[in-house]
Amino acid sequence: MAETNRQLRLQARPKGLLAPGDLQLSESPVPELQDGQALARVKYLSIDPTMRIWMAQDSYLPAVAIGEVMRAFGFAEVVESRHKDFKKGDRVIGTTGLQDYVVIDAQSRMPFQKVPSIPFVQDTTFLGVLGVTGITAYFGMMDIAKPQKDETLVVSAAAGATGSIAGQIGKIQGCRVVGIAGTDEKCAWLTEELGFDAAVNYKHPDWKDKLAAATPKGIDIDYENVGGEVMAAVLNRMNLHGRVVLCGLISGYTKEDPGLASLALVLVKRLKVQGFIVLDYAPRFREAAMELGKWKMMGKLKDRQTIVEGFEKTPEAINMLFTGGNIGKTIVKV
Amino acid sequence: MAETNRQLRLQARPKGLLAPGDLQLSESPVPELQDGQALARVKYLSIDPTMRIWMAQDSYLPAVAIGEVMRAFGFAEVVESRHKDFKKGDRVIGTTGLQDYVVIDAQSRMPFQKVPSIPFVQDTTFLGVLGVTGITAYFGMMDIAKPQKDETLVVSAAAGATGSIAGQIGKIQGCRVVGIAGTDEKCAWLTEELGFDAAVNYKHPDWKDKLAAATPKGIDIDYENVGGEVMAAVLNRMNLHGRVVLCGLISGYTKEDPGLASLALVLVKRLKVQGFIVLDYAPRFREAAMELGKWKMMGKLKDRQTIVEGFEKTPEAINMLFTGGNIGKTIVKV
Repeated sequence: MAETNRQLRLQARPKGLLAPGDLQLSESPVPELQDGQALARVKYLSIDPTMRIWMAQDSYLPAVAIGEVMRAFGFAEVVESRHKDFKKGDRVIGTTGLQDYVVIDAQSRMPFQKVPSIPFVQDTTFLGVLGVTGITAYFGMMDIAKPQKDETLVVSAAAGATGSIAGQIGKIQGCRVVGIAGTDEKCAWLTEELGFDAAVNYKHPDWKDKLAAATPKGIDIDYENVGGEVMAAVLNRMNLHGRVVLCGLISGYTKEDPGLASLALVLVKRLKVQGFIVLDYAPRFREAAMELGKWKMMGKLKDRQTIVEGFEKTPEAINMLFTGGNIGKTIVKV
Repeated sequence: MAETNRQLRLQARPKGLLAPGDLQLSESPVPELQDGQALARVKYLSIDPTMRIWMAQDSYLPAVAIGEVMRAFGFAEVVESRHKDFKKGDRVIGTTGLQDYVVIDAQSRMPFQKVPSIPFVQDTTFLGVLGVTGITAYFGMMDIAKPQKDETLVVSAAAGATGSIAGQIGKIQGCRVVGIAGTDEKCAWLTEELGFDAAVNYKHPDWKDKLAAATPKGIDIDYENVGGEVMAAVLNRMNLHGRVVLCGLISGYTKEDPGLASLALVLVKRLKVQGFIVLDYAPRFREAAMELGKWKMMGKLKDRQTIVEGFEKTPEAINMLFTGGNIGKTIVKV
């Protein structure tokens, strides 16, 4: 066991991308356990766009306070326990924070979940397709979008953690699925590996024409992760009474300008735009995990990770989400 | 019978408010009837914000072509008929266009409806609370907002034709109802005559504080007619999982800038924003008219008109919608 607990604490609310010093590395002793507590060693950290929101301001969760250990999901292994529900060797997912060791007790905001050891399923999958990321895509698609066979679904940030799963769920439901991503490599992955019907690189000058060509019957569902200009182009091609699942607005998270959209199209096309946050579905996480697990076992859901090695590289890994360096789920191996 | 048919034809797509000459007065002979046609004398014209959209561009209906008689709803009386469904003296509402006489035939885009003569009900009421305006408020509230008792409803452009009815429907359904309008006179009408719980004049510098004071439990439903800054202030006070009925965006109709809104609040508050156009409900108009008529007879729905006398003043009447000169339903008496 390491003798110290490395932690990344929020020292300043970032402007734009994270600057050196916004997250400050500190070391403290590994906590001493009291009755009712367990100590877990963090093995993998889930790097999610929403962390940038938590750094900036109160939103659906309170902002992380300055000086506090930065909030993050993670995968950890129990190394010592005086907690009746956990024993040494248990594998858990939960809000570990950016640190080497986390104390699990009754005060944890979101309870830690034990996860099984399944042959051929990597630990990191419990942060991706079988974790909060997959569950987000599941409820966004199945509960909000409610896709019908032969509808056209467009997913933005389609090569990202959530987008790649949302698109595959669209295929499982019989939709025509078109992804929008920022590199040709990502687009090739979507069509060649994940079975998307088409993928469009929004950095090509003629991308809107390509989006039009890829959606000859218009767009019924926009699974929106990006906002801004990408979303505007998708709204332009929406069919009457289309649905917009507002899962993220990543293009705005690092800007002062909060991702404005024109509601004129929402009005004249009678669209339904629905924001959602997966935490609202906490009581139904098990239902989603079962279904995702089934699809995963059947080979219908593929996942991919961008693994960044080394705890100290976490700030770079976070920035990668906004500069487009990642494919699939971004994870820091502690 | 007048010997000529005065018509207002769209000569230029307006920039901002209508300029002289955007609608050009012309005269043509009163049409000769053929078999299957009826001729109706237009008595009242319904002046609606959506006319500004029809002048500008294709939207939920094709734009009015340059040179064509401007599209408008109106109330008319049949003066001559070779149509099996209409006889002289029938009172009708429908898409009359801005003109003295309209020919009713099978080609009419939206069929003309006969309306009864009801004691104590003015003709103009069939363009307001018992017409498309009332029906819009009815479906926006009952089908999209689905208000629950004790919820807080905020209505923008609340002293306008649709807003004033939407708010009263909110009261009938047991909501706390707060109106936003642009003059103290309008606000007084909302609270003193229509029974709104509060009304806020958005032209007062401290209006956002007043909105906050008037919505101590936040806002569950935004019946949105305005967009822009007014909507932004309402979204700021929306409760989690609130609903936004997107009925109009009048603040943007006379601007190049199409009324941008931040979707960040829609996301973090998990709001549902739904655009709607009353024409989608055409098969259910009768249901709405029955219910509105019942409420009207019971004294639960009050209406008010701003009547502009004189066909030639129609362009001014249209501009009045955007400058705030009207209260309730704006109508031109031909």
